[in-house]
Amino acid sequence: MSSLTTNLSDLYIQVRDQTVALCDSLEVEDMLLQASPFVSPIKWHLGHTTWFFETFILKSLEPSYVSINPLYEHLFNSYYHSIGTPYKRSQRSLLSRPTQKEVMRYRTSIDEIICHWINTLEQLPEAQAYQLTSLLQLGLNHEQQHQELMLTDLHYNFSHNPLLPTYQTLHKPLEESKPILPLTFIETPPQLTEIGTDTTSTTFCFDNETPKHGHYLNGFALATRPITCAEFIEFIESDGYHRPELWLDEGWHHVQNEHWTLPLYWTKSNGQYHHFSLHGFLPIAQTAPIHHISFYEADAYARWAGMRLPSEQEWEFIARNRPIKGQFIDNQIYTPLPLRQFETSLSETFALFGGTWEWTQSPYSAYPGYRQTLDPLGEYNGKFMSKQMVLKGGSCLTPLSHIRPTYRNFFYPHERWQTMGFRLAYDLEDK
Amino acid sequence: MSSLTTNLSDLYIQVRDQTVALCDSLEVEDMLLQASPFVSPIKWHLGHTTWFFETFILKSLEPSYVSINPLYEHLFNSYYHSIGTPYKRSQRSLLSRPTQKEVMRYRTSIDEIICHWINTLEQLPEAQAYQLTSLLQLGLNHEQQHQELMLTDLHYNFSHNPLLPTYQTLHKPLEESKPILPLTFIETPPQLTEIGTDTTSTTFCFDNETPKHGHYLNGFALATRPITCAEFIEFIESDGYHRPELWLDEGWHHVQNEHWTLPLYWTKSNGQYHHFSLHGFLPIAQTAPIHHISFYEADAYARWAGMRLPSEQEWEFIARNRPIKGQFIDNQIYTPLPLRQFETSLSETFALFGGTWEWTQSPYSAYPGYRQTLDPLGEYNGKFMSKQMVLKGGSCLTPLSHIRPTYRNFFYPHERWQTMGFRLAYDLEDK
Amino acid sequence: MSSLTTNLSDLYIQVRDQTVALCDSLEVEDMLLQASPFVSPIKWHLGHTTWFFETFILKSLEPSYVSINPLYEHLFNSYYHSIGTPYKRSQRSLLSRPTQKEVMRYRTSIDEIICHWINTLEQLPEAQAYQLTSLLQLGLNHEQQHQELMLTDLHYNFSHNPLLPTYQTLHKPLEESKPILPLTFIETPPQLTEIGTDTTSTTFCFDNETPKHGHYLNGFALATRPITCAEFIEFIESDGYHRPELWLDEGWHHVQNEHWTLPLYWTKSNGQYHHFSLHGFLPIAQTAPIHHISFYEADAYARWAGMRLPSEQEWEFIARNRPIKGQFIDNQIYTPLPLRQFETSLSETFALFGGTWEWTQSPYSAYPGYRQTLDPLGEYNGKFMSKQMVLKGGSCLTPLSHIRPTYRNFFYPHERWQTMGFRLAYDLEDK
Amino acid sequence: MSSLTTNLSDLYIQVRDQTVALCDSLEVEDMLLQASPFVSPIKWHLGHTTWFFETFILKSLEPSYVSINPLYEHLFNSYYHSIGTPYKRSQRSLLSRPTQKEVMRYRTSIDEIICHWINTLEQLPEAQAYQLTSLLQLGLNHEQQHQELMLTDLHYNFSHNPLLPTYQTLHKPLEESKPILPLTFIETPPQLTEIGTDTTSTTFCFDNETPKHGHYLNGFALATRPITCAEFIEFIESDGYHRPELWLDEGWHHVQNEHWTLPLYWTKSNGQYHHFSLHGFLPIAQTAPIHHISFYEADAYARWAGMRLPSEQEWEFIARNRPIKGQFIDNQIYTPLPLRQFETSLSETFALFGGTWEWTQSPYSAYPGYRQTLDPLGEYNGKFMSKQMVLKGGSCLTPLSHIRPTYRNFFYPHERWQTMGFRLAYDLEDK
Repeated sequence: MSSLTTNLSDLYIQVRDQTVALCDSLEVEDMLLQASPFVSPIKWHLGHTTWFFETFILKSLEPSYVSINPLYEHLFNSYYHSIGTPYKRSQRSLLSRPTQKEVMRYRTSIDEIICHWINTLEQLPEAQAYQLTSLLQLGLNHEQQHQELMLTDLHYNFSHNPLLPTYQTLHKPLEESKPILPLTFIETPPQLTEIGTDTTSTTFCFDNETPKHGHYLNGFALATRPITCAEFIEFIESDGYHRPELWLDEGWHHVQNEHWTLPLYWTKSNGQYHHFSLHGFLPIAQTAPIHHISFYEADAYARWAGMRLPSEQEWEFIARNRPIKGQFIDNQIYTPLPLRQFETSLSETFALFGGTWEWTQSPYSAYPGYRQTLDPLGEYNGKFMSKQMVLKGGSCLTPLSHIRPTYRNFFYPHERWQTMGFRLAYDLEDK
Repeated sequence: MSSLTTNLSDLYIQVRDQTVALCDSLEVEDMLLQASPFVSPIKWHLGHTTWFFETFILKSLEPSYVSINPLYEHLFNSYYHSIGTPYKRSQRSLLSRPTQKEVMRYRTSIDEIICHWINTLEQLPEAQAYQLTSLLQLGLNHEQQHQELMLTDLHYNFSHNPLLPTYQTLHKPLEESKPILPLTFIETPPQLTEIGTDTTSTTFCFDNETPKHGHYLNGFALATRPITCAEFIEFIESDGYHRPELWLDEGWHHVQNEHWTLPLYWTKSNGQYHHFSLHGFLPIAQTAPIHHISFYEADAYARWAGMRLPSEQEWEFIARNRPIKGQFIDNQIYTPLPLRQFETSLSETFALFGGTWEWTQSPYSAYPGYRQTLDPLGEYNGKFMSKQMVLKGGSCLTPLSHIRPTYRNFFYPHERWQTMGFRLAYDLEDK
Repeated sequence: MSSLTTNLSDLYIQVRDQTVALCDSLEVEDMLLQASPFVSPIKWHLGHTTWFFETFILKSLEPSYVSINPLYEHLFNSYYHSIGTPYKRSQRSLLSRPTQKEVMRYRTSIDEIICHWINTLEQLPEAQAYQLTSLLQLGLNHEQQHQELMLTDLHYNFSHNPLLPTYQTLHKPLEESKPILPLTFIETPPQLTEIGTDTTSTTFCFDNETPKHGHYLNGFALATRPITCAEFIEFIESDGYHRPELWLDEGWHHVQNEHWTLPLYWTKSNGQYHHFSLHGFLPIAQTAPIHHISFYEADAYARWAGMRLPSEQEWEFIARNRPIKGQFIDNQIYTPLPLRQFETSLSETFALFGGTWEWTQSPYSAYPGYRQTLDPLGEYNGKFMSKQMVLKGGSCLTPLSHIRPTYRNFFYPHERWQTMGFRLAYDLEDK
Repeated sequence: MSSLTTNLSDLYIQVRDQTVALCDSLEVEDMLLQASPFVSPIKWHLGHTTWFFETFILKSLEPSYVSINPLYEHLFNSYYHSIGTPYKRSQRSLLSRPTQKEVMRYRTSIDEIICHWINTLEQLPEAQAYQLTSLLQLGLNHEQQHQELMLTDLHYNFSHNPLLPTYQTLHKPLEESKPILPLTFIETPPQLTEIGTDTTSTTFCFDNETPKHGHYLNGFALATRPITCAEFIEFIESDGYHRPELWLDEGWHHVQNEHWTLPLYWTKSNGQYHHFSLHGFLPIAQTAPIHHISFYEADAYARWAGMRLPSEQEWEFIARNRPIKGQFIDNQIYTPLPLRQFETSLSETFALFGGTWEWTQSPYSAYPGYRQTLDPLGEYNGKFMSKQMVLKGGSCLTPLSHIRPTYRNFFYPHERWQTMGFRLAYDLEDK
């Protein structure tokens, strides 16, 4: 067995095991929770990620492949209409069957067949080997996305239980070891640059990151770190949530209809701010990056501060030569730590990666030259290019190996249940 | 220990054990399902029935009583505002914690204390002993109501899973052993009678069955058996679901908005009718009483047949001298059997009890002289006297010991997830 | 021309003219308002009442009758599915065409044909003459119901305009001329009685008032007058709107979801209560009967007072030998006057008729022996016998000639936009 | 009086009169219609455009200015939270008062004062004169936007009336005088360009068109004309509305939930396509540009055709050197005419202006360097930069003098009630 095969096999097992390991501390009941259509039960994530390998690899490699359970195609299909009509998203918590045990058996069965294919990879015709490798990479990156979703969904689900279940106990308090650096900006003069990833790149990326294309940057300045909780508290205490002139019209509707007065999961009591986290009920860490806010809140803060959010291109331009370092799921602390926890040199004070995803001002849309494929996998990213915004950089729940400067995450601007924050920018001619 | 105490103790254990026994064949995940706000997870039923004993007996007997978990008061409160604000009904499936195991521990703990009280019953002052006995009877009848709900809710929940999970396998087909009797009517001339139960009765009844009061019956005729599935199929095939003139206005709205064309759980395929039951997917038993229809469907059938539904008083008048015999949960078949399965004499062909609940034309309201108590238990029945209809007779999911002629069940006229059917009546002067 | 014909002709013209006269002070725009699906634009009322004569008289008398505009059959059909699918109720305000002028032309055209028929009545075969007379009576009573609705709907519509338009200016204040009588009760011992109207009666009544049938009254006491605004204010100020134990479950949902803290149209400011009326913004008249409350509010008050609402039979029993006297639309004051305004003798202090409709505790359902006809007019009343409650006695917006003791009005228990109040009752054995 | 003053005065009167002239053929009732919260009654438009001048000019020029009716500030405020809380948008049809006549008096009163100010313009200090002129230009452009909305809203409102009212009769059929040109594309090589309008420009533009900024165009090709009705019919008949793979995810939800199978206002009967227009019910003009489709339908068509929609920058780049010529409201035909109706030379075959607005693939967001002002007028455009898409070019309902290449119109991607169509584009490297 070649080292390529060994590596792929190891990687496959490592990623798949990591998904299961995230469930170690959970009760069977926890894995069926679904507090809203936009979250899914853990058990469904476990089934769906397996379905992904079965559907896009086993069924395509082997036309005669017989499903482990033909109904799983329906139950675990998320949104691939080319495959068939998915089971209703809002009703995933109604699937007591297959049970957790049956889903784990499903995982094991598929894993065995996939591992067998990996082990025979070198005997395949080159084109097929290449296709299999590509699809495995896609499947594993897909699985990593669901690892993050499993925790953010669980967090949201747990928040509806007055018993406030804790995913994992924190053994030591989140000490604020180093003072926060003042907010400074790095200036970039106007210039033509290239954005995105070349379609011929051998490194894995999602199709929405391609192709590499020309982009003109007007002069801008980008903050050297995200806005902290302490800074956001100033906005709250300046009545930021009660001043319509600071908000986009759609954002103001959310403020009013959903009675937003604080970030999601936050409470204020006797002048003290706390939040419910995967580690339970904690005081707000003043110098941690702000988290669990919508694009609208980020945008309102920026307007209040007389600035704006960066575009995704500005963010990528600054990020692309910096080390990918920060707080990731690999650190096993599931709430953003105070900034500067991970810095060892000045260049790292940018805190671009990990910690929290950063909202940009860029609507999620196709890059010039982007082509959505017509096969079912074309539905993966392209069809969501409407009404969502781009986020960059990964969070404390993202696997380190999953992130890169060109990575484009996307959520609706009102959504708050991911680990989301932001940093400021401004136009150069403004100063 | 006296025989009274022994009997009460035995009864308590028997009823409480029966609740748990109903869960024997279920998976932990099944017990968290909640497909609609009008059903509850099995686990919640297990907790709530225990909460009932803790709240209304232990807390009232012992002012110093310390809750097993103070939050349970909130989580397992169904609708007793005098006790506190209940946890949101529509979110009961979000309570992965307390887990099934913890709820069972809660049951065991409360059972131990209650049994201790029962055993010391004879040492209590008479008034207190009387009150305890009354509350225990109420608690056990309450528990029996939830036994029926547990199965009807589970049935509804399972129906949303394309895998169509089966609560219990049926070991032999539902044979139609005896031919159905023709539909005949028993005539009752006009007369003054008394309806309901005397408040001084020593036999248990719910407050809504009291007091016994005068009621004048205009002459009427009541069918000697319920309408069967075969008879209801005639209505379906006469386009009954497409003729607005047969329906109450509210009923017609339901037909249109919810696209009713068949009873709940029914399907029609290749001219054959099947239904999804707690025993899985079964062909319709032609001579079984029609089940899983709303009041509106029963009323439309009656109009189509040129008759009407009986009033609750007419039903009670005819039922009160007949044996309480029929298909109950005790028979362990969880779908209505063909009529005449249980008859041994002609008087039993009435099939008034068991099988299916029977809709009446009577809105659920207070009997003349009814007084709702002002303590929290006053909320048990009285506050629901608005917009609901009375049903009589019990069903195949009701415990035999739970039913009596004066029993008043009540549901909204559009509801169909209980085991509900009906029989016809007409006014004597009509013929 | 006989006097019968003359009388009928005069009556027809008088009732039809009265409808139009109600619009005298309105702007064209006022007649298109529809603030909710449960109210209709004045213009639609004008068209619909005309449609009623066209559809049920002209089309049935003359098979060759040609509609003035075939689409009017669709547009002005309220809820007669036997006639065809009605235009969507919630969209009646979207019918700018036919214009007000065109609708008035439609009225005039139909009136001419109807008057022609009345004038030739004596030349018709007896059966047809009888049928025509009956239908005309029905049509005119129908028109009178819409006269009341036109004003209550207008009131509701005007209440949404911050300019608070006034239907008619009140030239003198509502003086409270006589002190209110103390609340006393008249006792009736248990007895068998007859309720409703005989089907052979020659006086007009609606089908839902028939047939006369036996009814047993358990002993009861009925208040000699309705509850006043001052008395209801005591309930408000005793926190009545914040005590769930006083409310039916459905009522409590309305209190919470719609934030009820006062009767409809009421405001409280600086300790003073005002209401928006058809005469504009007025202080609450302390001794006027309470008005614009739902059944739930009436029921909660009764519970708070330790009593209950009367049944419709109790009310009818007491009312049937008393003079029909009180404040009606004929008095041209469109808000309830202080009680005792119209009394000339003690027997009149009952104030059973006029002023406000009185909620009873009786769900609106069929009398024993009631048969709904199968022709389209069968849809008039019978199909609404679900979830609604009976009200008795008429209001200040009802024509005097329209009301009688057996009259059964019905609305949903949460509805408040009619002129609705109540009086108390209790069970004799309670005292 | 100088010619500047005269011109401004003439322009003011001409635009204001044009608004009123659009109502000439309407009934008073037509002007109160509001079939959905996203449209407004004509009467409200008449009031709001007047309110705009009163609020932003009269109140700011004269601090002591006394409102004609202080409540109008509330009633006619559209969405300026800095001015106060607007009257609820969805309830504008409930404002029967002020009546049409009163609103016209309001217009006249404000016009008189404004004209007085214009006439004294030359006596004002220069800064104030400049400010007044700027605000007048803004007010008149605002009024022109509402002229278009008045007709599109009326169209939508009329479409709910089965009588299908016609705004204006078409005196001759829409003849297709010239054959349509084949669909060709003009190619533009990659280049850096400038987009938008300089902030120092003396010609009027909206703030969202500024500032002029650098933008890099990757190579693209743009269609020389919009897609026609005949071409869109091919998409319909190729099952385009039933193939989820052609649609953005949000678009597919609209297709399913709102049962889209045709453009808005279209019907298909016996194989023939018709549409309801402001000129009544008309056959589809095959070579007219497609109209009344959402962004999602345009995008699905483009995907089906293997292409994409142009970006707003691509469109502007091609349009900026071409004559602004086409079918505008000035032509007084209120539905798109067949293409080539207005061409006199080949360069005009582009049909970029008039006819229908053209959807672009560009989300509506801030240009680099854009600053939203902090005064109430800052709410005009900037706060809507979320979830909407840019449209270019104007339509047959846009005043000719209102449009320019840099003009950015914006609507939600699901909206169809404007006169909206599109043209195709592709990336150069694609071919």
